[in-house]
Amino acid sequence: MEWRDQLNHYIEMINHSLREYTNIGDERNHLVVEAMQYSLFAGGKRLRPVLTLAVTEMLNGTVEKAMPYACALEMIHTYSLIHDDLPAMDNDDFRRGKPTNHKIFGDGVAILAGDGLLNLAYEIMLQDLLLKKNPDSFIRAMKCIGNAAGVRGMIGGQTADLINEGKSVTAETLTYIHQQKTGALLSASLTAGAYAAEADEQTASELAAAGHALGMAFQIQDDLLDLDGSAEELGKPIGSDLRNNKATFPSLYGIDDSRKQVKSLTNKTLATFKSYGESSEFLQSLARYLVNRRS
Amino acid sequence: MEWRDQLNHYIEMINHSLREYTNIGDERNHLVVEAMQYSLFAGGKRLRPVLTLAVTEMLNGTVEKAMPYACALEMIHTYSLIHDDLPAMDNDDFRRGKPTNHKIFGDGVAILAGDGLLNLAYEIMLQDLLLKKNPDSFIRAMKCIGNAAGVRGMIGGQTADLINEGKSVTAETLTYIHQQKTGALLSASLTAGAYAAEADEQTASELAAAGHALGMAFQIQDDLLDLDGSAEELGKPIGSDLRNNKATFPSLYGIDDSRKQVKSLTNKTLATFKSYGESSEFLQSLARYLVNRRS
Repeated sequence: MEWRDQLNHYIEMINHSLREYTNIGDERNHLVVEAMQYSLFAGGKRLRPVLTLAVTEMLNGTVEKAMPYACALEMIHTYSLIHDDLPAMDNDDFRRGKPTNHKIFGDGVAILAGDGLLNLAYEIMLQDLLLKKNPDSFIRAMKCIGNAAGVRGMIGGQTADLINEGKSVTAETLTYIHQQKTGALLSASLTAGAYAAEADEQTASELAAAGHALGMAFQIQDDLLDLDGSAEELGKPIGSDLRNNKATFPSLYGIDDSRKQVKSLTNKTLATFKSYGESSEFLQSLARYLVNRRS
Repeated sequence: MEWRDQLNHYIEMINHSLREYTNIGDERNHLVVEAMQYSLFAGGKRLRPVLTLAVTEMLNGTVEKAMPYACALEMIHTYSLIHDDLPAMDNDDFRRGKPTNHKIFGDGVAILAGDGLLNLAYEIMLQDLLLKKNPDSFIRAMKCIGNAAGVRGMIGGQTADLINEGKSVTAETLTYIHQQKTGALLSASLTAGAYAAEADEQTASELAAAGHALGMAFQIQDDLLDLDGSAEELGKPIGSDLRNNKATFPSLYGIDDSRKQVKSLTNKTLATFKSYGESSEFLQSLARYLVNRRS
């Protein structure tokens, strides 16, 4: 199968499971469930759950066993976007060309929909744990996701982002924000896939490191694309982000150095994947695609 | 030991553990951790974790084994209050005589502090699961907490409360709101205590029912106390809540019927506790106190 077909196959399976997991509305709670589904099906790329399923298959695990953890990661990612978009946070009216959750459902329901998705992520993983004779490795999958999502992970990064808004930040702070806000959950996506395949600790830890590198490469590439977009589409001079105090990797390190970092981080990720041989071909293609994308 | 001394002893142990569990601030995330601690130590009665520890001890379990689940319940309760108090929800400036979280830290950090507490609740339970040779009963403890907190529990109740604000509601809707918003987590507090003592399913299910009854009695008593408070302190006539469209049990059923319901629900709870003999004396005293309190 071509890697693009494989990608679409994963996405279809993920969407199917997400529909099933969120089929929990009743007469009373349907509004908040509708709000959860709205953002969950608003065009996400499913990057995190795809990584989980692909890592599991690379390590001879099954999609079926990894699916609750893959979907939990997508729910956690989605809840973080809903809360991030709120007027009290980034105050965004649109995401992926669609009105943000609170623009449709109001701020109160949007807060509850985010809370509901975070909680549902844990509910579906717990439901899965109960079915296991030996749940140990799956508890580890759940734990790495939990740690990545918490104040020592993603929420810590969002807090740093929020309190540094409009301020000039150091390269160190920017790296922290990206590592926590994006890297932690991306890394957990790979680690959860490893644990869902009942891989050993060393494998999980190698893949966690590869995930951190991939997350950082992905984020710097995002910064570079924003810069291209700004220059071409808005006509503002490259580097204006720096003068606007919006710290990005290119504004702090320059474009050439940022490109070099993307390359070096990607090579680190690819080296890890390659060490697993042929079964990692899909992940290699996906990693190359992510850092070479033009949008 | 007098039951009041026992209560204070439980509360001290819970506060000690909550301090330890939230000792996770570092140079970067300290603001959100500080916000989490602020609400966690703003004078809560610790009712939920006390119930968990007391049920566990009634069933010959240990405080030590139940503590992560007890503290998780308090964290989930606290996060729900932080989000509930936000301008987008109930818009409350004070809680228990202190400024609410967002009045001190701003709406953005308050949202993140709530998210952080919900996530931390799961992190500490998962950390505990990893230490268990046979985690089965503890997974069940975690699962009943997760279900009670989600959109089929507390979040569902909060949504119903939010969308019915200022509207005239039926007795059925009011019962649903109370059952989900208050009853679900109170009931889970008892069930989690049973599972932490590795009790059987029947015991867990009996205690879940007792918890639901206790939660409803507690809530109706709250309504009755509000009514007394209104009449005496504000000088507004009893029953004015009804004309203000603020549905309460007394406004829907009348004061006498509400008092009868409190009595009957409490007797149901007490009957369950009594069936466990002498070891339930603390819980009996606590239940009597909760429904006879004057504030």
